[in-house]
Amino acid sequence: MSLLVVGSVAFDALETPYGKVDRTLGGAATYFSLAASFFSPVKLVGIVGEDFTVREEAAFRGRRIDLAGLERAPGKTFFWAGRYSPDLNDRTTLATELNVFAGFRPKLPPSYQHCPFLFLANIDPMLQRSVLEQVRGRPKLIALDTMNYWIERTPRELRETLRRVHLLMINDQETRQLASEHNLVRAARLIFALGPRALVVKRGEYGAWLLTPDSVFAVPGFPLREVRDPTGAGDSFAGGFMGYLASVGRTHEHALRRAMVYGSVLGSFAVERFGVERLAGLTRREIEARARDFLRLTSFRL
Amino acid sequence: MSLLVVGSVAFDALETPYGKVDRTLGGAATYFSLAASFFSPVKLVGIVGEDFTVREEAAFRGRRIDLAGLERAPGKTFFWAGRYSPDLNDRTTLATELNVFAGFRPKLPPSYQHCPFLFLANIDPMLQRSVLEQVRGRPKLIALDTMNYWIERTPRELRETLRRVHLLMINDQETRQLASEHNLVRAARLIFALGPRALVVKRGEYGAWLLTPDSVFAVPGFPLREVRDPTGAGDSFAGGFMGYLASVGRTHEHALRRAMVYGSVLGSFAVERFGVERLAGLTRREIEARARDFLRLTSFRL
Repeated sequence: MSLLVVGSVAFDALETPYGKVDRTLGGAATYFSLAASFFSPVKLVGIVGEDFTVREEAAFRGRRIDLAGLERAPGKTFFWAGRYSPDLNDRTTLATELNVFAGFRPKLPPSYQHCPFLFLANIDPMLQRSVLEQVRGRPKLIALDTMNYWIERTPRELRETLRRVHLLMINDQETRQLASEHNLVRAARLIFALGPRALVVKRGEYGAWLLTPDSVFAVPGFPLREVRDPTGAGDSFAGGFMGYLASVGRTHEHALRRAMVYGSVLGSFAVERFGVERLAGLTRREIEARARDFLRLTSFRL
Repeated sequence: MSLLVVGSVAFDALETPYGKVDRTLGGAATYFSLAASFFSPVKLVGIVGEDFTVREEAAFRGRRIDLAGLERAPGKTFFWAGRYSPDLNDRTTLATELNVFAGFRPKLPPSYQHCPFLFLANIDPMLQRSVLEQVRGRPKLIALDTMNYWIERTPRELRETLRRVHLLMINDQETRQLASEHNLVRAARLIFALGPRALVVKRGEYGAWLLTPDSVFAVPGFPLREVRDPTGAGDSFAGGFMGYLASVGRTHEHALRRAMVYGSVLGSFAVERFGVERLAGLTRREIEARARDFLRLTSFRL
């Protein structure tokens, strides 16, 4: 089944202890689409400027990524620059230039309006809602990502949008902040009361949790020998997660658990190289091999 | 098979956001023994002062914990006072009074000398070695815990002791420090070169890893609704881990993985109440139920 993502397409400048790049393709919708396209066709909604050329578009070409919803606007593409701490656990934003993104008003082409799987990447909750209002039919799964900025600045708008969402996918700090509760199990209960019936808590190198009112599933972070650039890990996770679900067209517990594993697989690959480099060279065969590695990593018998 | 532990028996003063106790039974060997005794008989080697009375001894009574190796010395028992941060992830030591522990020279009673399973809790590496020198026969599994203090102050003595140990069980920061390597997978390789053929990395609320030269196993932290006092979590983990292995008398990969789960089970119970309170009231039935919860928490099919 088809999968729609709305979010940023950007240029990133990245600095980690392992290297530095001045300008590389980035943005949540970029990582998401590349990761998800291994599993299912993706329809991308976003905006880029005149500096986004055929060279950048090439990253999406040859994949099942529909760019009909990628608007071209006069001006420059969203730009973000960041530097990571030596242990890669913290990052400092050095520059955020919204550019054309400041005027982004998502518009769904007619061919996008019947998407059963929707991922609202981290953007203004009002824009996330405007996408939902353009969707026809009853989507099977609406998932949403957000961040501290929206939790703090637009709490009312975020809650209004959350009421219409099935699954919330955020990190542990955002979970605590949104629920005003440090304990994640209790925080999840409070979040279910806001609308979502499932919560995915991304915990970086420590893995991820899937919580529903009836169950908890935990997948550990993959023990990687090399981590070069954490940028896009969460969005790649989301892409693997949603891409897998769209490919099977189901959202029952077993499918969600498998989606967590495929999300973890894509997230773990993304951080091995700078920017989208690793995803760009990835194969489905490698994805399946690492999914089996996750099974070996976590399996035990009582 | 029988299991020997050498380590501290202490009085603790504890302060967490959930409460405060001025004087409660603690110490690595205490938590370890209580946790392990659910699975196998334990022989404890330690030292206490005159303030350790029948009242304290009662905590061990009725369990398969042999106190023949618990020396009584003139003076006061080891005392530790600590305060935890609001999120429980950091703690400040407010007081450490070694008291009789300063003169501790472990002496194994004759009935202790043929123990196939040994756990050397976090004490001076020279004392850990002196225990090994008193052991007869070839133990099936020698496991060791240590901390930053010994890694920094007595690196040579620690390395000498590590050469004679099969399994090292430390936390992630200690792993990084001992190996001078941030990446845990690479750090494990360096640690195998020091002697141990297996490494258990305790990661607090994030769970634990078991690394061998051929495999990695990860068990997540249990999603607890209530965490009141993290004191003794690592030692309870060690007790569940070693107690299970001693009960089956095996150390192959499947047994080690199951031991990781039982370690996690005991660690997760320990933190639910202050001091040893939860372990004191725990039943084998609850342990098995939580082990099955761990299976549900981590299971998926590809």
